[in-house]
Amino acid sequence: MRVLILGGDGYLGWPTAMRFSARGHEVTVVDNFSRRRWHKEHGTDSLTPIRSLEERLAAWAEVSGNQIVSHAGDLVDGDFVERIVADGKPDAVIHYGEQPSAPYSMMGREQAVETQHKNVIGTLNLLFAMRDHVPECHLVKLGTMGEYGTPNIDIEEGFIEIEHKGRKDTLPFPKMPGSLYHLSKVHDSHNIHFACRIWGLRSTDLNQGVVYGIETDETAQDERLCTRFDYDELFGTVLNRFCVQAVIGHPLTVYGTGGQTRGFLNIRDTLQCVELAVDNPAEAGEFRVFNQFTEHFSVAELADLVQRSAGEVGIEVEIDHLDNPRVEAEEHYYNPVHTKLLDLGLQPSYLGDELVRSMLKAIEANRDRVIESAIDPRTTWKPGSPAGAPR
Amino acid sequence: MRVLILGGDGYLGWPTAMRFSARGHEVTVVDNFSRRRWHKEHGTDSLTPIRSLEERLAAWAEVSGNQIVSHAGDLVDGDFVERIVADGKPDAVIHYGEQPSAPYSMMGREQAVETQHKNVIGTLNLLFAMRDHVPECHLVKLGTMGEYGTPNIDIEEGFIEIEHKGRKDTLPFPKMPGSLYHLSKVHDSHNIHFACRIWGLRSTDLNQGVVYGIETDETAQDERLCTRFDYDELFGTVLNRFCVQAVIGHPLTVYGTGGQTRGFLNIRDTLQCVELAVDNPAEAGEFRVFNQFTEHFSVAELADLVQRSAGEVGIEVEIDHLDNPRVEAEEHYYNPVHTKLLDLGLQPSYLGDELVRSMLKAIEANRDRVIESAIDPRTTWKPGSPAGAPR
Repeated sequence: MRVLILGGDGYLGWPTAMRFSARGHEVTVVDNFSRRRWHKEHGTDSLTPIRSLEERLAAWAEVSGNQIVSHAGDLVDGDFVERIVADGKPDAVIHYGEQPSAPYSMMGREQAVETQHKNVIGTLNLLFAMRDHVPECHLVKLGTMGEYGTPNIDIEEGFIEIEHKGRKDTLPFPKMPGSLYHLSKVHDSHNIHFACRIWGLRSTDLNQGVVYGIETDETAQDERLCTRFDYDELFGTVLNRFCVQAVIGHPLTVYGTGGQTRGFLNIRDTLQCVELAVDNPAEAGEFRVFNQFTEHFSVAELADLVQRSAGEVGIEVEIDHLDNPRVEAEEHYYNPVHTKLLDLGLQPSYLGDELVRSMLKAIEANRDRVIESAIDPRTTWKPGSPAGAPR
Repeated sequence: MRVLILGGDGYLGWPTAMRFSARGHEVTVVDNFSRRRWHKEHGTDSLTPIRSLEERLAAWAEVSGNQIVSHAGDLVDGDFVERIVADGKPDAVIHYGEQPSAPYSMMGREQAVETQHKNVIGTLNLLFAMRDHVPECHLVKLGTMGEYGTPNIDIEEGFIEIEHKGRKDTLPFPKMPGSLYHLSKVHDSHNIHFACRIWGLRSTDLNQGVVYGIETDETAQDERLCTRFDYDELFGTVLNRFCVQAVIGHPLTVYGTGGQTRGFLNIRDTLQCVELAVDNPAEAGEFRVFNQFTEHFSVAELADLVQRSAGEVGIEVEIDHLDNPRVEAEEHYYNPVHTKLLDLGLQPSYLGDELVRSMLKAIEANRDRVIESAIDPRTTWKPGSPAGAPR
């Protein structure tokens, strides 16, 4: 298969590219390197010393004997997107090519506009290119569980049957997301659904939980193949952040009570899920939504897990409850359905002490690269609110 | 009150500006004149000979003795929006300033991107400006009934109580809109809801039906004050189009069976509804949705009404059923709730033969201005589909 991976230089995009290449697919990656730029702008960096995309591709060719093709460019450039799709004629597009951070989107107007502009218009350009050049191609789009928010009912996978005043219909699950970034993904979902309904495109929207982990089968083969690992307040996800904090002796930064519960999955399972989606494509005209996570935890539970696992290897860890920089429910109902990927054969790697200990060890190896000033939260959902102050 | 009207040069924006000015409010209008530009680009024009905004404002000052302030600029320019809001310190913003045409948004990638970019980013800029400069200000946003699509259950006003697996929550009504324009309004609604939830802004989202009519109390006072009246395939709404078609002897362009049912209201009632919303503002933090229409009709019923009313004044009218250029259900359930504006005191002007006859008469006066080539539908929802051919 010809597989086009948008955002192929990123945390998940790069390991995904290698995985599909290792399976013998013809892989093309596209990236505008904005994550690298944002880190430069904020004086932060990946914990892992990632190579340039060129070096990565050369190393991968050397290690695997497989070539991955790359194009540098921005998805808001509609002509660029059209050219890539028309020339490459992909059978599947895996779309990670978006601004992925909730706090980044909440920094201010410019970042909010950048996030919604890049994400919504980039995806819209892609939909037109697919419609006009590869209408049979399968779009596998990375969405987020955060699109749903935390309603007081069970979250279904994309659609819900509603009985109302004696009539029934199955409609898109209502969305109450918690940031302008999450909203950009809600907008994408609505646009993609439309493209499937009206133009007959086929798409799988992967509403992914929070990803953790540092290693996949392919990244482990050569240190030049490692993927990025962010731990800063903007781009780091919670478990990855806690593990870095534990290693450098920084109290774990729990926002508020830590009762916020979310779905989580290992980066290895992200690759498995994306493969399952690509190998079992949606039907023509179908907009399919999978809730892509394997377990759910509260933030406080994760802090306890990291504290305990670190303790087992002799690292003493404190837990701080900070004024919550976000506006979110700290205690809420949370029971999302997530059976569709299991039905396709997903074999989850569950989170436990051993996995956390292996992450701590991998982080320890790069401990001297940690930029400690990047850890405390500074971006607040309400301007002028306190953040980062221990309660 | 200080009232800021975005899109104040438009079909509804201009009459609204005069209405609030007539009531003694301090009115500021903003426009980027894109509707005038789009018409130039497509070789079309308003049926009514509208004056430049400058001439309108001068005429209004002469007729009413009231000054309306105007600023030319584009809402995607965040600094411009911020300056207008910070300097003007409005108590209410009435936001019509968006690309309003479904077919325009479906012409191709450029128009789709333009529509979603201008509408979504313009509104996002406005939300930031309000948050930072006038957090108590009431945003009255023009949305559309088309955001809902045509679900098989009763459409509620913005939110629906869902009982699911033994639990209950009241959530945003699920949306299945029918064009990329309608989607832009769905995106706006989600963003505005967020701004109310997170920042405590107050907003009323007016999910408006299809507007018809040519005259308001203020436009009738002087011919220089008339508002635009579009009848072309892109910007004309269905009843306005049918009336023009009747006058010039063009068969009425019913798309498909004409079973498509929508909510409708008179332009006079738009002004009433907007006034009711402004006079009864949302609470701080409240995102309130009103379904703004007075009656619902199928397209075929409207065609019959126009045929009959025209017949009463001696005009013989044919009805054509064309291949539907859109992708939409031609037979469907439709029963949206619309009680909130009635509860606030809306006195509907119902549609009937007399109103249609008065529209025919007004159109007759400008009959020589009709550009007949602009009438038949050419924009299709699926590229390459036939459109405009009689079945």
